[in-house]
Amino acid sequence: MKVLVLGGDGFCGWPCAVNLADQGHDVLIVDNLSRRKIDIDLEVESLTPITNIKTRLQAWEEIGGNPMQFEHIDIAREYDRLVALLQKEKPNAVIHFAEQRAAPYSMKTSATKRYTVDNNVNGTHNLLAAIVESGLDIHVVHLGTMGVYGYGSHRGATIPEGYLKVEVPQPDGSRFKEEILHPANPGSVYHMTKTLDQLLFLYYNKNDQIRITDLHQGIVWGTNTNATNRDLRLTNRFDYDGDYGTVLNRFLMQAAIGYPLSVHGTGGQTRAFIHIQDSVRCVQLALENPPKQGERVKIFNQMTESHQIGELAKKIAGLTGAKLNYLPNPRNEAIENDLIVDNRCFIELGLKPTTLDDGLLTEVVEVARRWADRCDQSRIPCMSAWTSTQAQAIKQNP
Amino acid sequence: MKVLVLGGDGFCGWPCAVNLADQGHDVLIVDNLSRRKIDIDLEVESLTPITNIKTRLQAWEEIGGNPMQFEHIDIAREYDRLVALLQKEKPNAVIHFAEQRAAPYSMKTSATKRYTVDNNVNGTHNLLAAIVESGLDIHVVHLGTMGVYGYGSHRGATIPEGYLKVEVPQPDGSRFKEEILHPANPGSVYHMTKTLDQLLFLYYNKNDQIRITDLHQGIVWGTNTNATNRDLRLTNRFDYDGDYGTVLNRFLMQAAIGYPLSVHGTGGQTRAFIHIQDSVRCVQLALENPPKQGERVKIFNQMTESHQIGELAKKIAGLTGAKLNYLPNPRNEAIENDLIVDNRCFIELGLKPTTLDDGLLTEVVEVARRWADRCDQSRIPCMSAWTSTQAQAIKQNP
Repeated sequence: MKVLVLGGDGFCGWPCAVNLADQGHDVLIVDNLSRRKIDIDLEVESLTPITNIKTRLQAWEEIGGNPMQFEHIDIAREYDRLVALLQKEKPNAVIHFAEQRAAPYSMKTSATKRYTVDNNVNGTHNLLAAIVESGLDIHVVHLGTMGVYGYGSHRGATIPEGYLKVEVPQPDGSRFKEEILHPANPGSVYHMTKTLDQLLFLYYNKNDQIRITDLHQGIVWGTNTNATNRDLRLTNRFDYDGDYGTVLNRFLMQAAIGYPLSVHGTGGQTRAFIHIQDSVRCVQLALENPPKQGERVKIFNQMTESHQIGELAKKIAGLTGAKLNYLPNPRNEAIENDLIVDNRCFIELGLKPTTLDDGLLTEVVEVARRWADRCDQSRIPCMSAWTSTQAQAIKQNP
Repeated sequence: MKVLVLGGDGFCGWPCAVNLADQGHDVLIVDNLSRRKIDIDLEVESLTPITNIKTRLQAWEEIGGNPMQFEHIDIAREYDRLVALLQKEKPNAVIHFAEQRAAPYSMKTSATKRYTVDNNVNGTHNLLAAIVESGLDIHVVHLGTMGVYGYGSHRGATIPEGYLKVEVPQPDGSRFKEEILHPANPGSVYHMTKTLDQLLFLYYNKNDQIRITDLHQGIVWGTNTNATNRDLRLTNRFDYDGDYGTVLNRFLMQAAIGYPLSVHGTGGQTRAFIHIQDSVRCVQLALENPPKQGERVKIFNQMTESHQIGELAKKIAGLTGAKLNYLPNPRNEAIENDLIVDNRCFIELGLKPTTLDDGLLTEVVEVARRWADRCDQSRIPCMSAWTSTQAQAIKQNP
């Protein structure tokens, strides 16, 4: 298939693009390289050294990969170029990773809140409007987040894949049954933008019959996939800083360099996880199993297991001898929550989950150790806070 | 109270600002005058001649009104000026009308879809981020729309005020009861932006305890209020064109000039209505009855009666002798729907609904007749279409 990968230079986008090319798809990456530029502003770098996009694509071709193209377009700002690209390339599908994806970054300042909303909403809406304008039948595969459901209000119930069956009591005592988009309960401005995306999809699917698959992804861990492991120049980014580092990768990197594992709050927060290798496989499965014409938005929970953050830290401490460091929680969230998630859609499509086994954890620790001298330890603490009260607490105990 | 009225130069915003000043509040209007500029682009004008904002404010003072101020700020673009204004004025409340508010305009072209999303989402989000940044406790009163609930999927059930009580069946046969934000089912890009606003409010109320009242307003009819009737220079705008004219006002204007009433589709669509006098009264009631600190977003249905569009046309035809003209429907909507709406919140606060009586209808016809020579009949047909198929149908039978 001809596939555009928007945001194909990022942490999930790059290994996804490489995997799709490896599986024989005709891939064109669209990116404005914003993730690299945010690193410049934050004065931090990927723990793993990453080559520029041109070198990445050349390396991929040199080792015999199915060639990929690249277009530098800001989809939130350069609408006309996006429309022209769709009209020229006539892709079968667009994979949409092109959003600011860090919750702490989205809560950092008014400017980063506003950038996150502006970039994510306009980017997604531009894509949908451009598809309508092109008149083409293009399947959109979007990277959403498990965070749209929220944490802490499910009281033991299983989170369904996007839609919730409810009964509405009527005055005559009967119950009206319907299936609704699962109520949104975002935990940050970033997560909120993904709940806004859901309504954009709901509308454009209803009005214009755009075929859409929305992937509610858990927290991604790991760095490389089988395909990006083939050449050092293909190496994926590894974020360890307080804004962009994801919790499990941060723990593993901290363990690698002998830094106490940062547990924010009690550690009772439960989150969903997925290894990067499974993430790229899921996107491929979603791409190859599109919704039918006229079908409602397909929603998959893209995660393989749930863990309490504190338990995860203890597991890694046990494996590596690292110490735990309990810190004030910068997030405005439930102290503790359960999280039971239905992920049957991907299992039924053939996903074989990569579980959190010791071998894979050790592999990430090894990657982190290899590049340990690139780590700026001053960038490890989370300095973004959800409210001014929490910002105060962090300042006193970073 | 010290009140900022964002969008206070528009069709609802202006009479609202005048009413609040008349009721003794200290009003500062913030507007970027975009509504007047869109008229320039569309090459159409309010049927009633309206004076510029400076003249409006001078006239109001000259007839003894409580003086109002004006600031020309684009809240979606000039964030820093908005923050500075909040910090300087320290308002008790902000009434937020500052959004592109016409469904047909929002569906006109890719550019108007994109403008509507960009302007409305960034405007609302900037306001919320600015309030957080200011550190002030400011009550936000927002003009939403009945259209967030959608039309045609309620099967005889009453639409509650914003929140829906549902029961979620559990695997053990029990039912988990919860009250959720009413599922969104917007009928245009414009309506969609108001469903996005709801999620912005949900989040900022949860994370930052901003006190918010969201008014889901029906279709406004009428032109002037008791206060704007006091001087010709205070006259409110009267939109009759296919993009900005609201259905009942369009019928009344068409009757006034002997133009057949444009009924789109079967006329079986039911909508909620409210007279402009009641609209300004409701905003005042919402302002004077804010949610408590820590209370969830207050949602009121701001409407007084529901009518089928076709029946309304027949009523006006009976009153004035006008003919009906059934036209293709440019909207992608149910052919027919019922609409039963709970509006007890405002009734309990003391609203005495202005019903759709013949006297008031005749008053609007008289306003329209007075300015009939200002009407450009070529601008009466609706030319915006929801899909390309509908655009074709309209071209063949405008």
